[in-house]
Amino acid sequence: MINFTFKNNTRIIFGKDTEGQVGKEAAKYGKKVLLHYGGGSIKKYGLYDRVLKSLKDEGLEVMELGGVMPNPRLSLAREGIDICRREKIDSILAVGGGSAIDSAKTISLGVPYSGDVWDFYAGIATPEKVLPIGVVLTIPASGSESSSGAVITNEDGMYKKGFSSELMRPKFAILNPEISFTLPPYQTACGCADMMAHVMERYFTNVRYVELTDRLCEATLKTVINNALKVLEEPENYAARAEIMWAGTIAHNDLLDTGRIGDWASHDIEMEISAIYDLAHGAGLAIVFPAWMEYVYKNDINRFARFAVKVWDVEYDFNDVEKTVKEGIKRLRNFFSEIGLPITLKEAGIPYDRFEEMARKCRKWGPVGKFVELDVNDIIKILEMAK
Amino acid sequence: MINFTFKNNTRIIFGKDTEGQVGKEAAKYGKKVLLHYGGGSIKKYGLYDRVLKSLKDEGLEVMELGGVMPNPRLSLAREGIDICRREKIDSILAVGGGSAIDSAKTISLGVPYSGDVWDFYAGIATPEKVLPIGVVLTIPASGSESSSGAVITNEDGMYKKGFSSELMRPKFAILNPEISFTLPPYQTACGCADMMAHVMERYFTNVRYVELTDRLCEATLKTVINNALKVLEEPENYAARAEIMWAGTIAHNDLLDTGRIGDWASHDIEMEISAIYDLAHGAGLAIVFPAWMEYVYKNDINRFARFAVKVWDVEYDFNDVEKTVKEGIKRLRNFFSEIGLPITLKEAGIPYDRFEEMARKCRKWGPVGKFVELDVNDIIKILEMAK
Repeated sequence: MINFTFKNNTRIIFGKDTEGQVGKEAAKYGKKVLLHYGGGSIKKYGLYDRVLKSLKDEGLEVMELGGVMPNPRLSLAREGIDICRREKIDSILAVGGGSAIDSAKTISLGVPYSGDVWDFYAGIATPEKVLPIGVVLTIPASGSESSSGAVITNEDGMYKKGFSSELMRPKFAILNPEISFTLPPYQTACGCADMMAHVMERYFTNVRYVELTDRLCEATLKTVINNALKVLEEPENYAARAEIMWAGTIAHNDLLDTGRIGDWASHDIEMEISAIYDLAHGAGLAIVFPAWMEYVYKNDINRFARFAVKVWDVEYDFNDVEKTVKEGIKRLRNFFSEIGLPITLKEAGIPYDRFEEMARKCRKWGPVGKFVELDVNDIIKILEMAK
Repeated sequence: MINFTFKNNTRIIFGKDTEGQVGKEAAKYGKKVLLHYGGGSIKKYGLYDRVLKSLKDEGLEVMELGGVMPNPRLSLAREGIDICRREKIDSILAVGGGSAIDSAKTISLGVPYSGDVWDFYAGIATPEKVLPIGVVLTIPASGSESSSGAVITNEDGMYKKGFSSELMRPKFAILNPEISFTLPPYQTACGCADMMAHVMERYFTNVRYVELTDRLCEATLKTVINNALKVLEEPENYAARAEIMWAGTIAHNDLLDTGRIGDWASHDIEMEISAIYDLAHGAGLAIVFPAWMEYVYKNDINRFARFAVKVWDVEYDFNDVEKTVKEGIKRLRNFFSEIGLPITLKEAGIPYDRFEEMARKCRKWGPVGKFVELDVNDIIKILEMAK
């Protein structure tokens, strides 16, 4: 275990009907709120009305900025920054999934900063303060509701890039599993793949003696796997939706990181795919992660065997550990397929002609992968294996 | 899963040599610090000097109050409250285990309160503010370093009583596993029993559909069990000490509570024993918990079977579930014995003549046990089974 510091001060408000508390929570951070969201789904099912009522009941003044797209764009965040400055907004409330939250985080970074908010993502600036943000979560997936990070796509070159700072953790996050009842199966499945990837990125580490967090990772993965199938069969199964939703937060609130160094190559590679092809992040991860595993497993065959045995209940083959490992990867891929995700680039309709471009863009910001560091050729090979 | 709110804003600073950061952390909360600790062990191994140096290096003014005893006493906390008021102390730094931390928490509650600090424990007052406290942990056990609770013993009647409030979470906690190298085997074992009990109190719940937290509980228990034997064999095994120390925090930082209702009868009963006989809390729990299990397991035989299978690797007996359950309890008791703890009142030298008195005191503050509510006769029977 390596030295670490850990503090996560997002207040989680979890359960049925909890969105009614949003006004009271938001009121702690000032009078003027920017309500930030995506498309029409929050209006379709009445969530928008309930949130707005709760805010108004507390006497809050509400400005709105909708239109966040999956793989949220820098241009909209810049628009949000302008609104917040012009209207002297006190806090931002993201109602949505990872895209709305990450867009809100980007706005919150940009408002008090004198330069261009992309500077943070480009690694040439460090935030000193941010606008407080709150969340009403609609899609369990990104873990952004209590994470310190955000990912944004810069349309100028279609660079999709992440940035993280402790300042960026939302002040509060309201998680009502009922809100996820109406999520379409594909989005539900993408969310499950996303949270599983968050755990797996942390799981594959070269740091030795990380037993507690290994076990916590396995516990979280098994819970997602077990409940993903349930919610796809019964979208209104509250118990299963609740497991998925809470697991999504735990997967990315940095607890599972403590004392270890994660890999994150699969995320980096996937971001290059979705930046160009606008694929859902979770679907991209379902394609990339197993291919990455096949490419790197020899770096630590015992860790991959543990993954197979502890997460996928593969019987350990004492005579052929590699067979155990491969069976684990196979079950992961089968699982992604079973929940309705593409497991090859072909299935996702992604052509094979820009692998080198993606690989070069991926390496543009520095090293890729901490479990195994990948160069441009390695990334191309992984993309080849994901065909 | 039931609705919950969760926020734990203790900043954890974990790892080798981290106590050197204490001055910088403490300086965030003012200029005058009360250094609060127990006996001589922190002086014996140089920790006292290192902490004091770090505080002085930041220009902090340090007052001291040592002498915290195991099962910390209200009288010393009152003394601390007087010192803090008289000297206008800004924050309290507890250097020690649960006793020093709980004593510090009691002081921090009492300083800004106009009445007697026991009022909080007696349930007739609610705190509005507290003095900030920090921790340098020496004994992984209580989880008090990031918990919202404290337990104090009122010498007037030898009442040992707990109280909890979100305000009471320490602002920071420094956890260096190396500091626990010098812990004697008995204290190490008591600590392991204490943290296991914190998990088990939460594990035995009547709330259905708590899969993620069930699995997280099991992960934490298995880690403690696996590493307890290692640290007893090799006291300077950093990796194993680190697992134990981090598990002790996770066991009681309220994450494992989310969405469930724990039992806590074993804690309540144990507190009556240690209030009178000044037994180490962990040792008392090693005696009481298995007896409690034997008394209540029929309330949910499947949950106890799960405990046996998932935590103790008992092979599930499809023809005789009760046998599975009993084997699990037996392994728990054997484990406590193996790590050097008493598993009967007799082994701890505790006489059998005050069971009724303890049972009545235990019920004095209200219901005991939420998994199974126990009356005075039930508690007496459990104590009988613990002979």
